[in-house]
Amino acid sequence: MNGIQKFIIGKPLDTGAVVKNIDATVFSGGNIGELYVEPDKKTITYKMSEETVVYGLGETLRGINKRGWLYVSNNSDEPHHEEGKHSLYASQNFLLVDNGDGACFGLYIDHPGEVRFDIGYTKSDVLTVSAEDFDFSLYRIDGETPLEIVKNFRTLVGKSYEAPLWAYGYGQSRWGYKDASDIRDVRDNYRKLGIPLDMIYMDIDYMQDFKDFTVNPERFPDFEAFVREMKEDGIRLIPIIDAGVKIEKGYDVYEEGIKNDFFCKKEDGTPLVAAVWPGKVHFPDFLNPAARKWFGDKYKVLTDMGIEGFWNDMNEPAIFYTEDHLKEVFGELDNLKDKELDIWGFFGFKGLLNSIDNNPEDYRRFFHEFNGVKVRHDKVHNLYGFYMTRAAGEAFERNNPDKKILLFSRASFMGMHRYGGVWTGDNMSWWSHLLLNIKQMPSLNMTGFIFSGADTGGFGCDTTEDLMMRWLEFSIFTPLFRNHSALGTREQELYRFGHAEDFKNIIELRYALIPYIYGECTKAIEENGMYFKPLSFEYRYDERAREIEDQLLAGDSIMIAPVYEQNKTGRYVYLPEDMKLVRFRSFSDYDTEVLTKGDHYIKAPLNEVLVFVRKGKKLTLTEPASCVDKLDVNKVASVIEF
Amino acid sequence: MNGIQKFIIGKPLDTGAVVKNIDATVFSGGNIGELYVEPDKKTITYKMSEETVVYGLGETLRGINKRGWLYVSNNSDEPHHEEGKHSLYASQNFLLVDNGDGACFGLYIDHPGEVRFDIGYTKSDVLTVSAEDFDFSLYRIDGETPLEIVKNFRTLVGKSYEAPLWAYGYGQSRWGYKDASDIRDVRDNYRKLGIPLDMIYMDIDYMQDFKDFTVNPERFPDFEAFVREMKEDGIRLIPIIDAGVKIEKGYDVYEEGIKNDFFCKKEDGTPLVAAVWPGKVHFPDFLNPAARKWFGDKYKVLTDMGIEGFWNDMNEPAIFYTEDHLKEVFGELDNLKDKELDIWGFFGFKGLLNSIDNNPEDYRRFFHEFNGVKVRHDKVHNLYGFYMTRAAGEAFERNNPDKKILLFSRASFMGMHRYGGVWTGDNMSWWSHLLLNIKQMPSLNMTGFIFSGADTGGFGCDTTEDLMMRWLEFSIFTPLFRNHSALGTREQELYRFGHAEDFKNIIELRYALIPYIYGECTKAIEENGMYFKPLSFEYRYDERAREIEDQLLAGDSIMIAPVYEQNKTGRYVYLPEDMKLVRFRSFSDYDTEVLTKGDHYIKAPLNEVLVFVRKGKKLTLTEPASCVDKLDVNKVASVIEF
Repeated sequence: MNGIQKFIIGKPLDTGAVVKNIDATVFSGGNIGELYVEPDKKTITYKMSEETVVYGLGETLRGINKRGWLYVSNNSDEPHHEEGKHSLYASQNFLLVDNGDGACFGLYIDHPGEVRFDIGYTKSDVLTVSAEDFDFSLYRIDGETPLEIVKNFRTLVGKSYEAPLWAYGYGQSRWGYKDASDIRDVRDNYRKLGIPLDMIYMDIDYMQDFKDFTVNPERFPDFEAFVREMKEDGIRLIPIIDAGVKIEKGYDVYEEGIKNDFFCKKEDGTPLVAAVWPGKVHFPDFLNPAARKWFGDKYKVLTDMGIEGFWNDMNEPAIFYTEDHLKEVFGELDNLKDKELDIWGFFGFKGLLNSIDNNPEDYRRFFHEFNGVKVRHDKVHNLYGFYMTRAAGEAFERNNPDKKILLFSRASFMGMHRYGGVWTGDNMSWWSHLLLNIKQMPSLNMTGFIFSGADTGGFGCDTTEDLMMRWLEFSIFTPLFRNHSALGTREQELYRFGHAEDFKNIIELRYALIPYIYGECTKAIEENGMYFKPLSFEYRYDERAREIEDQLLAGDSIMIAPVYEQNKTGRYVYLPEDMKLVRFRSFSDYDTEVLTKGDHYIKAPLNEVLVFVRKGKKLTLTEPASCVDKLDVNKVASVIEF
Repeated sequence: MNGIQKFIIGKPLDTGAVVKNIDATVFSGGNIGELYVEPDKKTITYKMSEETVVYGLGETLRGINKRGWLYVSNNSDEPHHEEGKHSLYASQNFLLVDNGDGACFGLYIDHPGEVRFDIGYTKSDVLTVSAEDFDFSLYRIDGETPLEIVKNFRTLVGKSYEAPLWAYGYGQSRWGYKDASDIRDVRDNYRKLGIPLDMIYMDIDYMQDFKDFTVNPERFPDFEAFVREMKEDGIRLIPIIDAGVKIEKGYDVYEEGIKNDFFCKKEDGTPLVAAVWPGKVHFPDFLNPAARKWFGDKYKVLTDMGIEGFWNDMNEPAIFYTEDHLKEVFGELDNLKDKELDIWGFFGFKGLLNSIDNNPEDYRRFFHEFNGVKVRHDKVHNLYGFYMTRAAGEAFERNNPDKKILLFSRASFMGMHRYGGVWTGDNMSWWSHLLLNIKQMPSLNMTGFIFSGADTGGFGCDTTEDLMMRWLEFSIFTPLFRNHSALGTREQELYRFGHAEDFKNIIELRYALIPYIYGECTKAIEENGMYFKPLSFEYRYDERAREIEDQLLAGDSIMIAPVYEQNKTGRYVYLPEDMKLVRFRSFSDYDTEVLTKGDHYIKAPLNEVLVFVRKGKKLTLTEPASCVDKLDVNKVASVIEF
């Protein structure tokens, strides 16, 4: 069997995730192969064998093998994403089940609202997919191998976004660069040390009162000239765009949105008042095509000033509070004030306070105009970030047809991969989040999010020099390569630490690898394949390879094995076949060693990057430069063959 | 050099941590060996080489090698203890510095307040100890080896607490067993499956309105008879005791405390009103010897009913709120209510709400009568849990001289190890907390906390069957062996899952090992040594062994290597010398294999426990029984020798 079957269950909404027309079976329940669908119980169940591995779900928690947890598709502003959580910023409802015996299949649930994936959590051998709104198209995807299933699935959802070549450079970001002078400092410090740099990201600080498509004129007196100045230095500025539009008389985006009825409304027809960074905002109804076009065209304000890339944020959407619920909270507080709180009363009080932000009830307070139908937000919640990014992506096709624009988003959904990439959201400066980053990459690649990466060094919490170095040593292989951190945390630009030479060597190695990485990503995009693959996708019947989640195949030529533990100067590596180890101290200083199939303990001091060249493959490096535009991608600095 | 030097810096308080008199040098600054003390800067610094390993700090975060982070001794009610945090429930200000070149030394800072240990965090090669109150005794401990330094240090702080033999049995706990019937159910379910069980822990639910030393008479109509009934079944009930005493007219503990002036007071002389589980409470001043004796004697209420063990909780002390600060918060909320909150106002509002519990300011609101002197709480904060446990321990010596009483605490400090053990506090059902548990054990052992363990399966969050099994497979080696979970989380008694036979086999293996574990712990106590040791303590010049933190020596005969990752059926193990692998499926079903020094990948399906018998050693197992009292510890079921 090799193909895709479509089953219509209940009354699905058209999410826009799927681009390929397929004959559908209206399905009222029963077996689809080994899957058992029970609309009455709102469940799809599958009995797993001990050997079954379940891949998929794109950007979420835990391992490459998703067994042993409950995942909930419910895009969430969740900076504390540790093991106990169930949802992150993304919903990619694609599963790939591989039984040890050779049988494998894919499953895609095209549902815009909450879907629950209990993958051996309640019962260790039962996979249960459930949804309160049991209305969706179910796609069963067959293929001979996991990779073939991925490729089939991707024909269904369309070709992945292609980022411009320069976007494969290294980017420095921090919430807190408040003006042009701060940004010049970043540039100067990098250039002084000779560490390559292609982008400086602008977090919310650049805007006037956090208003989308504005630039604070005091802090950036001549923004257009500043963009030009930076670009002359080989550095592109990449501003953030948030989902919420500030409520402010006279602010054009607000005024136009009101005039044209483009904001999400409550039951009573008035626009929802929520609060995020700008204070009180309305949320554009990106699900409404006219509103989407209008908002997308706004990016032109910035592209006209020379901006060539954006990151869309806060588009789950994150809600700090809604006006309505905050009123309720203050009302309750008034009631509590004069009461003698017993301890349960106190916990009620604490619960009330914790209900203020990202409250599920608030997501039921507003509506979209979706394909001409009024739909309550929670029913289509997971589409919001996708449609915001689609707004931008479609606008770039209209307004900037001759240019590739860099675009990536925090929230995502299947289909969004056609318009932009993702970063994995507000992670922490934790070693465990470096490991999570490693595990997330192949899952994102399965679902077509090729241009992806994490906040290197960690966004929240304070980083350390060694974590920064080890994280960079992984991130040099991720297409999106950005160092980003939060206001109030330890500064983590690479010139803040000692060992500048080591940092420089690592970043230069990235630049030397850009032709390889870009080429392999482009191939993955063209072939609906994957740039980052789990070992098991290539060495499927190697039972050791099936369990390895801390080594990845990056493109066709190499395997990587990052060190992700503190105070370690080496690690175990399993080779599913003979490979040539390359130990890079810099792009030009490395040694190689042929290692045989099997287990190896490999020394890897803090400043060394381990790469394993696969049999019959070669890795070509170019000469690094201070930025991608200055890179001679055809120049060969060295070729490592095995 | 082999011995202890004492330096008096400023005006130290006598914490009670040290029991050995040592001639002291009054020290005003300068070098102590390679340490540089600068009282003006309030710092002690030490330059680390690349090879330097820093051990110590007892129960805290991160690795066995503490390099690369900032640790703060500040006993904290911190259930979210992930990598980014700086303090846990304990303060054990002992460091052991081992340079690769053979030189090593210990450092103990006998300070009852906050101490900061920047171990290569700010600068990767600098260790800085600092304290705002730069008044303490500094002990430098020398010895030929790390273990010798540990032993020297322990002569200083006195012999560790010895738990009764039965306390090495398996205990089931959960916050939420509300009455005798719930507890009988636990017993019956365990006995039905034939899974050994020695203790059922009673969390706060057993008390009348959370009042210490009361038992709810409706839920436990004849408590004394119930204790007897359970004991006849081989099960001891282990009640919790919290630090706060409910403010309630007529409640004897409250009335006596007020009458005798035994509660901590504010500047104005009135007792501090804080809130914890019982609602509003006063905190007994355990630092006052009379109050300590009085509170300790209260445990007799329960020992007279047949109770033989206790766990002291909430004794950092945790504070849900103080009356004074809550009043301030409500005042501020009133101010905010009618204001238009901008986004920074909103964050101020959120900050205000987050200031309610465990607020550092609240720890400056009250005072102790410490050695006859009035001392503000924050100055001696880290002593509080120690002195609560000391209250109980001293009382047991007075009132129960013929019996060993089980006693352990959440908060701890050096010195407390003489009176009781510890559990590692409110961890989570995270795989990373299983690994943390493994890493914490040898550090606790260095500081004399031999009788210790973690909440197996995880306290907060929902556990999974596989996590439970893997965690048990480690915890069967920890002296304190308890399965504990929080109200509202997934139930995790072993009969809640499938694979009861596997669970039974694991617990029976523990019972078969009790003579070994108890014997080795007793030896560690007698010799001021360690039961759990890092590999590097025995194989110090093996550079691989120096970095291994996920294998431990447990007693003199064995090394353990738990599996702590999900969906893994094996792991890498490094053998610093030839060893005999024992793969236990049960105490009587195992196979053995001699493995050579070096690296091995060892298969370990979910139901198998890996043990490595060291060269020239033997491991003796007895026949398991349903409880320790029924164990024939002299019976030899098998001997595994190498």
